[in-house]
Amino acid sequence: MRSILDTYIRDIPDFPQPGIIFKDITPLIEDSGAFRLAITSFETLVQDVRIDKIVGIESRGFLFGAPLADRLGVGFAMARKKDKLPGDRIAVTYDLEYGTNTIEIQKDSIKEDEHVLIIDDVLATGGTANAVCSLIEQLGGKVSAMAFLMELSFLDGRKRLAGRDVLRLIEY
Amino acid sequence: MRSILDTYIRDIPDFPQPGIIFKDITPLIEDSGAFRLAITSFETLVQDVRIDKIVGIESRGFLFGAPLADRLGVGFAMARKKDKLPGDRIAVTYDLEYGTNTIEIQKDSIKEDEHVLIIDDVLATGGTANAVCSLIEQLGGKVSAMAFLMELSFLDGRKRLAGRDVLRLIEY
Repeated sequence: MRSILDTYIRDIPDFPQPGIIFKDITPLIEDSGAFRLAITSFETLVQDVRIDKIVGIESRGFLFGAPLADRLGVGFAMARKKDKLPGDRIAVTYDLEYGTNTIEIQKDSIKEDEHVLIIDDVLATGGTANAVCSLIEQLGGKVSAMAFLMELSFLDGRKRLAGRDVLRLIEY
Repeated sequence: MRSILDTYIRDIPDFPQPGIIFKDITPLIEDSGAFRLAITSFETLVQDVRIDKIVGIESRGFLFGAPLADRLGVGFAMARKKDKLPGDRIAVTYDLEYGTNTIEIQKDSIKEDEHVLIIDDVLATGGTANAVCSLIEQLGGKVSAMAFLMELSFLDGRKRLAGRDVLRLIEY
């Protein structure tokens, strides 16, 4: 599936490491029309999802999650890398291809039974998104859906998120 | 000066290091009404500023800068820490109390003569904001103004930014 948004995504070879083709979203957010179209497309994508709060994943998830929260009139919470958030928080550590990663959220970011939409720029292997689901559910929240600007479908992240409502604007 | 927004900012003692009282904005962004009020207040604050593009400083600057760009219908560009951005970029390294910090922007993020509003959550010593001004001007842009959610005025950041249009919603 191609969308006009796709024309604003730029391939950067060998970033962050040799052999990886990085999908760079900066041309999209730097263009006023494309950026607004992306936020409007997210609004349409989640129109049937119950959303009490949006959780954005650091840091490109903030670029889309914060404007969407503003438009929908819901609160926005941050899922951040280890030791970035102050105060009482919980953490989940998950495996990467090489090594592990840790993601955290503040304990009072999610209220009991709150319906949460998770936003990030890209769904790759699904490890981070899956960990954020776990954080939200540990705090008594419900993950209504996850929405991504891009899904790298060849990495099969959707399989790791089986049973979840996984939405995306662009598929590669 | 106090604002209703101030009631949503939480003091966290000894973060990120002993002796520092961190101003935590998460209660503000997690409350739908307070978050929207903050974005509306930014809109009012910059109503007389010429803005072709907003540059947000990683990563809490994205929380306010991206929704403001969406509301104003302008593009949004990221100033990020070292090695986070892909592609061709320029960097400025500046002094901290202990050590140095480096901030980067992509070379094509700013066009010649573009009028830029810089957004971040907090103005402390002004070192980062000053470095971002330098990045924008090296690329031929003009810094119209800088807008912050909070100014920690006891740190005198405004002095370092003398001659700049420095705006803020809350002063401590």
